[in-house]
Amino acid sequence: MKPFCVALAGLGTVGGGVGQLLQTNANVIAARAGRELKLVAVSARDRSKARAMDLDSIAWEPSALALAERPDVDAIVEVIGGAEGIARALCEKALANGKTIVTANKALLATHGERLAQLAEDNGATLCFEAAVCGGIPIIKTMREALAGNRITRVQGLLNGTCNFILTRMSHDGMAFDEALDLAQKRGFAEADPTADVDGLDARHKLALLSTLAFGVRPIVDSISLEGIRRLTPLDFELADNLGFSIKLLGFAQRTAQGLEQRVSPCLVPLSSPLASVDDEVNAVEIDGDAVGPLTLIGRGAGAAATASAIVGDLIDCARGMAGLPWGVPTKDLSEMKALSAEEQKSRWYIRLDVQDRAGVLAELADILRDEDLSVETLWQQARSAAQEPVPVMIVTHEASAAALARAVVRFAALGAVRTPPLALRIEPEL
Amino acid sequence: MKPFCVALAGLGTVGGGVGQLLQTNANVIAARAGRELKLVAVSARDRSKARAMDLDSIAWEPSALALAERPDVDAIVEVIGGAEGIARALCEKALANGKTIVTANKALLATHGERLAQLAEDNGATLCFEAAVCGGIPIIKTMREALAGNRITRVQGLLNGTCNFILTRMSHDGMAFDEALDLAQKRGFAEADPTADVDGLDARHKLALLSTLAFGVRPIVDSISLEGIRRLTPLDFELADNLGFSIKLLGFAQRTAQGLEQRVSPCLVPLSSPLASVDDEVNAVEIDGDAVGPLTLIGRGAGAAATASAIVGDLIDCARGMAGLPWGVPTKDLSEMKALSAEEQKSRWYIRLDVQDRAGVLAELADILRDEDLSVETLWQQARSAAQEPVPVMIVTHEASAAALARAVVRFAALGAVRTPPLALRIEPEL
Repeated sequence: MKPFCVALAGLGTVGGGVGQLLQTNANVIAARAGRELKLVAVSARDRSKARAMDLDSIAWEPSALALAERPDVDAIVEVIGGAEGIARALCEKALANGKTIVTANKALLATHGERLAQLAEDNGATLCFEAAVCGGIPIIKTMREALAGNRITRVQGLLNGTCNFILTRMSHDGMAFDEALDLAQKRGFAEADPTADVDGLDARHKLALLSTLAFGVRPIVDSISLEGIRRLTPLDFELADNLGFSIKLLGFAQRTAQGLEQRVSPCLVPLSSPLASVDDEVNAVEIDGDAVGPLTLIGRGAGAAATASAIVGDLIDCARGMAGLPWGVPTKDLSEMKALSAEEQKSRWYIRLDVQDRAGVLAELADILRDEDLSVETLWQQARSAAQEPVPVMIVTHEASAAALARAVVRFAALGAVRTPPLALRIEPEL
Repeated sequence: MKPFCVALAGLGTVGGGVGQLLQTNANVIAARAGRELKLVAVSARDRSKARAMDLDSIAWEPSALALAERPDVDAIVEVIGGAEGIARALCEKALANGKTIVTANKALLATHGERLAQLAEDNGATLCFEAAVCGGIPIIKTMREALAGNRITRVQGLLNGTCNFILTRMSHDGMAFDEALDLAQKRGFAEADPTADVDGLDARHKLALLSTLAFGVRPIVDSISLEGIRRLTPLDFELADNLGFSIKLLGFAQRTAQGLEQRVSPCLVPLSSPLASVDDEVNAVEIDGDAVGPLTLIGRGAGAAATASAIVGDLIDCARGMAGLPWGVPTKDLSEMKALSAEEQKSRWYIRLDVQDRAGVLAELADILRDEDLSVETLWQQARSAAQEPVPVMIVTHEASAAALARAVVRFAALGAVRTPPLALRIEPEL
């Protein structure tokens, strides 16, 4: 059978990993694909740079867009990145030309995935993106194919390795956020500008794609509420641990009869949950299907080799003609689903306040809790410090709506004695 | 597009679950399959029995074999069970006729899978068996497709829910084996004759299939060493816990440059391993690929709904023409791999002996350990009982070969003071 001819657009960490894997494991890949996967062309910014792979007999295109025009190319691996610009233009052109796109670009897919998938379907082309969500974990294939007989009710997970690394160091080593971020940067788990990771934007892109696969809804990033991890302190981890919880940045999407709940936020996860003990840069996703029940996948969410594993898996599916529709169903059948209102989003809550410790403060807090119908399960205040510094107060509530919680937080923040913006975290239910 | 027509051979727990899932989720299934999945015929022993599904407009065949001859049937779901007899005959006939077989029958596949797969390939038929290993966990698809770009070095897991339930009760509730087995039977997690489960035969069938998918070796059940869980006592769990381990029945297959190691046996698993905290009837599999690194899947390994999830996932792949080769590579390309010798199988070991507590016993044990070059890490002996009952002695060794361990165990057993056959368990390494 004639080789399946692949072009690489981007030769950074991931692109290099793909090239290396195609060369190192050429034999097993050919055996499983039923034909050779042949790297025929590449494109990257700097031709003079040393590369981890052998580029000798491979065509070099100065412009990535030219890859979409080459008659000798069956599939293009897009690992340039970015939701716009050259990555988007390349994918549009390649799909319009009926070529396969395999990409790790979550920002592009979460933003323009609907249009790109439609373009693929209209032109008999293929769009694969296993690598875009949790790197080496085959969560896309699992949801799109393995669980295709299920109605998915919920998908949640630790979707960002940078955040999980930072949270693990804060939890296990008592580090402050800045210190843990610094270590993550030194270890190569965080970028120089960590915003996309620590503020949850990256996890939100991934969650939008998971929601589409799980519920058949259009990927709409802005409908996912977002909160990052910058405001957590070592004390929060200590208090959570005492309560029997770990703090994780959780991407969460759930379909109920009342609507769709989608959020990315740091949460208290019960230690009995499989997600609670997934540490360091590891990712994990838990899916609940009506037939399969809960299914958890844990593995490497980033890194050159793990991401290349996902990309090459997609390429092999394509080479065998076994790649399905991008979302598992025709793009035109994606729907919109009403968002669950804040009144309907119920949870137990962890609230941490820094208050000036003077007579009457607790009464002010208690008044607000009563007014907003927030029933208190635990209230703890740290012993007064000698220096009259603000002291932390922790409140754990019984189940209450996100709307009531939000109203209380606004009122807490307005109190003269409350010195920093209140921190409120959801407490995820025990299994 | 014309419906994909399915026949059900067997209407027991799993067959009923498949029929129900096809009916309940007909809409999502049709959307993902791109066509209707239509149940057109069934076969079971007793037509008069009440069924959980609506059989009104569905043909009834008194003989399952007749399903393989029906021109209106595209795929047959074989959930009769058993490695021989009607299940085997049905699969052979259907595949020879070019029909799709979807089966949950691990015994049949581990025993005759090579021949059946070849038959499928020769006749342009499809043989799918996601449900045969760990029920709802998509481990077959993950290994065969998602990780196709990897060389797999190791696969290990908790492959039998009955055993995991029993071990969890012994560990958490201090139950004796018989008591835990009894509870498992009452809860429906163990059959009246529990041999296939508690003696590891079921897990061995599954491991043979995983080895074939992981390493491209022919499935050979007898080459997998086997040990069940009957000889464990609550004391073993207590001692293991003190050492920082959980005891799990582990299916383990690893490829090294020296050969293939395959075994099913109770092992001490470090509490830091994701497998250690997988409890009750839940299954888990960990795969190590050279690109993806470690990947863990945790979920329901049995039960009507979870097994039906896997079967219907396979049916949808088949309906879309996206099912690949049974083993991911042509059956004729499966190879044999030299087994790793017992001398080359290194491990730390946990040994528990019941000894008559008299002067000189420890010296006899120590002599044997020295002769066999087993270096001791910990030795513990329970305080002497008043009644001169035998007392337990626990020995933890440093790394030593399975051959040396086996020689020592034979010599321990021959000592007059050793009152019951010694128990020796592997200690799995920390990550």
